[in-house]
Amino acid sequence: MIKIALDAMGGDYAPRENVEGALMAACQHGIHVVLVGDEKKIQKELHKSRFSSALIEVAHAPDHIGMHEKATESLRTNRNTSIKISLELLQNQKVSAVVSAGHTGAFMAASTLILKRLPEIERPAIAGCIPTLKGSCVMLDLGANVDCRSSHLVQFARMGILYANIVEKKTNPSLGLLSNGEEASKGNELTREVQELLKNKPEWNYVGYVESKDIFKGKVDVVICDGFVGNIFLKTVESLVSTTFLLIRQEAHKKPLSRLALGIGAYLFKDVLKNLGRRFDYTQHGAAPLLGLNGLVYVCHGRSSSMAIKNALLTAKKSVEEKFLDRLKQEFHPV
Amino acid sequence: MIKIALDAMGGDYAPRENVEGALMAACQHGIHVVLVGDEKKIQKELHKSRFSSALIEVAHAPDHIGMHEKATESLRTNRNTSIKISLELLQNQKVSAVVSAGHTGAFMAASTLILKRLPEIERPAIAGCIPTLKGSCVMLDLGANVDCRSSHLVQFARMGILYANIVEKKTNPSLGLLSNGEEASKGNELTREVQELLKNKPEWNYVGYVESKDIFKGKVDVVICDGFVGNIFLKTVESLVSTTFLLIRQEAHKKPLSRLALGIGAYLFKDVLKNLGRRFDYTQHGAAPLLGLNGLVYVCHGRSSSMAIKNALLTAKKSVEEKFLDRLKQEFHPV
Repeated sequence: MIKIALDAMGGDYAPRENVEGALMAACQHGIHVVLVGDEKKIQKELHKSRFSSALIEVAHAPDHIGMHEKATESLRTNRNTSIKISLELLQNQKVSAVVSAGHTGAFMAASTLILKRLPEIERPAIAGCIPTLKGSCVMLDLGANVDCRSSHLVQFARMGILYANIVEKKTNPSLGLLSNGEEASKGNELTREVQELLKNKPEWNYVGYVESKDIFKGKVDVVICDGFVGNIFLKTVESLVSTTFLLIRQEAHKKPLSRLALGIGAYLFKDVLKNLGRRFDYTQHGAAPLLGLNGLVYVCHGRSSSMAIKNALLTAKKSVEEKFLDRLKQEFHPV
Repeated sequence: MIKIALDAMGGDYAPRENVEGALMAACQHGIHVVLVGDEKKIQKELHKSRFSSALIEVAHAPDHIGMHEKATESLRTNRNTSIKISLELLQNQKVSAVVSAGHTGAFMAASTLILKRLPEIERPAIAGCIPTLKGSCVMLDLGANVDCRSSHLVQFARMGILYANIVEKKTNPSLGLLSNGEEASKGNELTREVQELLKNKPEWNYVGYVESKDIFKGKVDVVICDGFVGNIFLKTVESLVSTTFLLIRQEAHKKPLSRLALGIGAYLFKDVLKNLGRRFDYTQHGAAPLLGLNGLVYVCHGRSSSMAIKNALLTAKKSVEEKFLDRLKQEFHPV
């Protein structure tokens, strides 16, 4: 039985959507979820829900971290927050993973402090699955490290390749380095240094620099970049997809005929757009793992709905089932 | 009469589309165009076209720079390339601007060498107009400088604000700094340094950090970033828009009913999609100016069609008409 701790207090719609998502994961997928947070509030939501499950446990945490607190401040005070209690459950092996839609910075900082980094990993990285025309691509770092050294990116590559292989089931995953052009003469100081280091990794399926279009085409299984660039890439993708639909609406409203066409088109397109939206919706895709720690932790979008929370729990379950953490430890500390 | 030099040999479809675009600009918009390149080839295309105009001149250049040459190599040999001859026409005030769809790196390097940088400008930057829900936003640098210092970004801001004001007719343009979050605690080493420097510019309408979603919403008139990030942003936008349409098609083909819906929807949506495509098509939007030189030069996409070339010439004409270069010189060297 896989048991996962969920920060019930983190996210814009907590605890309601978190509790509902946990119940869905328990009822529909048999995941044992420990809801961590204000017990009274959690119980209230549990009673309100149309679901109920014996697989749900509650662990009380008297406090939680507000979205506008400073990440470092929240640690310094050492309060018994839902994030801290969740991570301690993982540290004490009461659960196999932690999922939180709360304050990302505070969650990452607390995870690193409590779980510790794996040996040889200088910086943990957020890895996400980017939808492509062929399926998906593991991309990291999506925002944990805004200033990176070349050695960090090589470590990201190593973790990303393993994740693509073990969790995403890709054989001999191909690796690309995000750059401003495919030619070796392109890139900035950092990427050129990384190129040099990757020359010493003939065992990796490294294809060289890739551009955004290559990612969307599905040219590579894993792509690495620094967290500043990765975060801007991710947010550009997220916001452009919604902007495109708004622009379609804007264009359509210019003429009565196209307004009608939009209505009919939208009706006919409904399923198509729904599926497409799902492929690009990162809250739906679930959670992004923070890789490089001695424990499995998953970061969710702050705006996570119950469906997103459920999918996040499923994503976490997948890595637990595949014993990803053991494989990662082995990779960085072969016995 | 505004006279502009066009590199007739640069781009994937040169000289055919270049000559055709020049003829369209001359016939439809009264722009005097000097076609620079292999005279025989240009004359052949001129004869083939259904257009003809007395506003077209040809300046022979025996050589041109191939798309796969190294930018630095092409300069060292000092051949009489179409780019070099075009820039010399501008240097000698025979034309008011130069437009090229050729090798961007070589074009930028030759422009800097021949025209020289303006005083106080350490690095020229490529500025582009990003479509937004409210209109457009001037973004720079889109790829001229992959490694930037904070002083460079402040200079980009100064040039971008002036461009938005003079050419894009925005009053007191608002300025944003592209980052991984809006809070002042976000950003990387470079953006934090730039934030500090911008505190000394109370005369600018600086709104702070912006994210991609803010750009698309039209929150700012000008946005600055280093050329590596800017280029990746631009390419992500370009390739995601086309990927979205491919994904719609892919989703639609999964079921016969939605295939039918796609057909009907596409028919009804035709104009809407066409307009939308136009707003996001950078080749249609024309050319991006390389700002910071003692002369107006415009970089086009390598895949420029005749329509793109025509629009590039129109974009260049607009800056010439507004005497943008004089205003820029004044800004950086007030008398």
